[in-house]
Amino acid sequence: MKKYTEMTKDELLTLKAALEEEFKTVEAKGLSLNMARGKPGLAQLELAMPMLDVLTSKSDMNTILGNDTRNYGDLDGIGECRILMAAMMGVHKDNVIVCGNSSLNIMYDTIARSMNFGVNGSTPWCKLDKVKFLCPVPGYDRHFAITEQFGIEMINIPLSNDGPDMDLVEQYVNNDPAVKGIWCVPKYSNPTGISYSDETVRRFAALKPAAEDFRIYWDNAYGMHHLYEDDYDEILNIITECENAGNPDMVYVFASTSKISFPGAGVAAIASSLNNIDNILKLMTVQTIGHDKINQLRHARFFKDLDGLKAHMKKHGDILRPKFEAVEKTLEAELGGRDIGSWVSPKGGYFISFEAMPGCAKRIVALCKQAGVIMTGAGATYPYHKDPQDSNIRIAPSFPSPEEMQVASEVFVLCVKLASAEKLLSEM
Amino acid sequence: MKKYTEMTKDELLTLKAALEEEFKTVEAKGLSLNMARGKPGLAQLELAMPMLDVLTSKSDMNTILGNDTRNYGDLDGIGECRILMAAMMGVHKDNVIVCGNSSLNIMYDTIARSMNFGVNGSTPWCKLDKVKFLCPVPGYDRHFAITEQFGIEMINIPLSNDGPDMDLVEQYVNNDPAVKGIWCVPKYSNPTGISYSDETVRRFAALKPAAEDFRIYWDNAYGMHHLYEDDYDEILNIITECENAGNPDMVYVFASTSKISFPGAGVAAIASSLNNIDNILKLMTVQTIGHDKINQLRHARFFKDLDGLKAHMKKHGDILRPKFEAVEKTLEAELGGRDIGSWVSPKGGYFISFEAMPGCAKRIVALCKQAGVIMTGAGATYPYHKDPQDSNIRIAPSFPSPEEMQVASEVFVLCVKLASAEKLLSEM
Repeated sequence: MKKYTEMTKDELLTLKAALEEEFKTVEAKGLSLNMARGKPGLAQLELAMPMLDVLTSKSDMNTILGNDTRNYGDLDGIGECRILMAAMMGVHKDNVIVCGNSSLNIMYDTIARSMNFGVNGSTPWCKLDKVKFLCPVPGYDRHFAITEQFGIEMINIPLSNDGPDMDLVEQYVNNDPAVKGIWCVPKYSNPTGISYSDETVRRFAALKPAAEDFRIYWDNAYGMHHLYEDDYDEILNIITECENAGNPDMVYVFASTSKISFPGAGVAAIASSLNNIDNILKLMTVQTIGHDKINQLRHARFFKDLDGLKAHMKKHGDILRPKFEAVEKTLEAELGGRDIGSWVSPKGGYFISFEAMPGCAKRIVALCKQAGVIMTGAGATYPYHKDPQDSNIRIAPSFPSPEEMQVASEVFVLCVKLASAEKLLSEM
Repeated sequence: MKKYTEMTKDELLTLKAALEEEFKTVEAKGLSLNMARGKPGLAQLELAMPMLDVLTSKSDMNTILGNDTRNYGDLDGIGECRILMAAMMGVHKDNVIVCGNSSLNIMYDTIARSMNFGVNGSTPWCKLDKVKFLCPVPGYDRHFAITEQFGIEMINIPLSNDGPDMDLVEQYVNNDPAVKGIWCVPKYSNPTGISYSDETVRRFAALKPAAEDFRIYWDNAYGMHHLYEDDYDEILNIITECENAGNPDMVYVFASTSKISFPGAGVAAIASSLNNIDNILKLMTVQTIGHDKINQLRHARFFKDLDGLKAHMKKHGDILRPKFEAVEKTLEAELGGRDIGSWVSPKGGYFISFEAMPGCAKRIVALCKQAGVIMTGAGATYPYHKDPQDSNIRIAPSFPSPEEMQVASEVFVLCVKLASAEKLLSEM
């Protein structure tokens, strides 16, 4: 198992020719596989189907408090669903608003509100010359799309296995009043799968922002998404840590059941200090009379409590684990020790992040496409779609079947090999 | 039946004393009734309960086109629900986006998008010194709350039985580039119950706005909400009229099933030109991955088509009619010919609008409250809650039972009489 980087030109040429032959064979199969988006697979969707039997025409549709979920009201969400989401998010129910079907939409609206009305009375961001957000990279493309759409300048912050580079975060946040936020996926990060260390979370909570309206946008999308029952990450509770550090208003936490019940038909929530929640509700009351309380009731009655959620998540883990392992096994078998890429084997979440040789990501994704395997676009994990090294590729193993995942992984490693050989030869 | 306005001071004093006695008797009953909000009543909510049996754990969850409603996708709504809402709105399915549970939320987001990004490429409104909206009055308080929250200047436009004063509308829209929109409830208007005449709709369609980003915000909330099967209003299709007048992009139409299926758990939609729809989707794709498609499927399969909707609406009408008639009968019997107020008996919608003697609305609402009957706050039907005449009161007969409605109406007319006598005496 020789490292590509130690091969001679002749060895590389021979290798490349063999890889090209192999590629042609694969191409001829006319595959059509997709590892692009973090969509749950069919078996996962089946898990929540019994939820559709929870409410029928014969059901009592009142909440525990006696409010009719079929009529207007309960802007902040019905009590039992707030309790459920609060348990999931590790806070008190009064710190939670349960909204509609999408935490991304809550994040978008939170930014939109800040643009138009400021944060708890601060100057509306649209009236400022410059607003900046810190973006740990690689990160979630849809976060970056929001800040890009609003014309917010995005600053890359390197993400290591402990979390974002906190020296850099502190330097920006504590000194530049134009820095109004940072996007975080603190647990099983999208896409690298890492979780923030306790020290990282504590340093976040202890920030001393130059801007009064700076907030941490803490997207805990994968808080319960463990792959292994006996080996999983836990992160500190950012809301508690911020309270303890005397910064109770500094963080918004987002979560949803999109990848627990149904993507697009789950419930999503925001958690924050009572002060922040109060300010959000004052504005939200003009935006809507209320969210879908029947779906909230369906979720509360189906999952019942945190134990119910955990039991359900175990089933998701059982379905996802073989898919992740199929990818990881193939990566290890075919690329291990060859010095043409690295990856982290995550303990949860939805992605495996592959770090190719610099300058190879676009080429690998293009080759995959040519061979019938759609990957997330290279660069997608960076603000403005600009991966400065052109090296990061996000692999989403959830949607294909384990068998398809195996085939797709084999195509992927072949394309990595070929692109790497090309790259090394081009530099000789 | 003498007119109050023709009574002598002595007659009025005697009358007032008698009314005060009557008021004390009513007050002593300790009533607790609510005619404040346009909430469907319990019997109406029951109508849609069978919808909860439409999707079960055994259901095929795919759309006609084979898309899985349980997963991400279909940002513009699933095909069959777009077809359903398009039929309701009188347009082609391609002109419709089916969103979440609230048309108010769509309107809010439409204004928010215009503030932040402009309209189809125009200057974002937040960058302009002044943005104005025309507000036919009396009108819907939640419309006015949106424009007020965004700091948009609201201009009152008198509403007659044919619709808004179109001379005034044309004068503003065709000359002032700061005028960016007008709020309309064209059918069974909230609160007056009138429907726009064909001439009014045609004059709307023929506007020649000074602002390229002027839009008509056409909230057809009560398009199908007839009280009488054989006597109902129809209005011209504003989208067709705008197309014919060469103004295809000038209107956004909003509708929902909030008062058809469940308030808060219905589906809402926006209809507009293909150009507008395309521009909205380009921005919306960053806001959300998609709306609740399972609920869209539930609605499409339950109502099936326009005939299904119509049959369902007939049931609503049967429940609402006696409530409206109880109010109207009491108004007529107790206030008819007394020259202390006027009202229109609507053929549909959710409200009866009462026009008291100038300067009496606040007093009447306060007296009602004192007697245990909550009315919509006086002034609510005007921008900034300022009814220049202090005369309009919105009556919402839908939520109480017919029996409660009868009692509440009797309290209301008593308060009208008392306030009017007080008023006339104070001017003597």
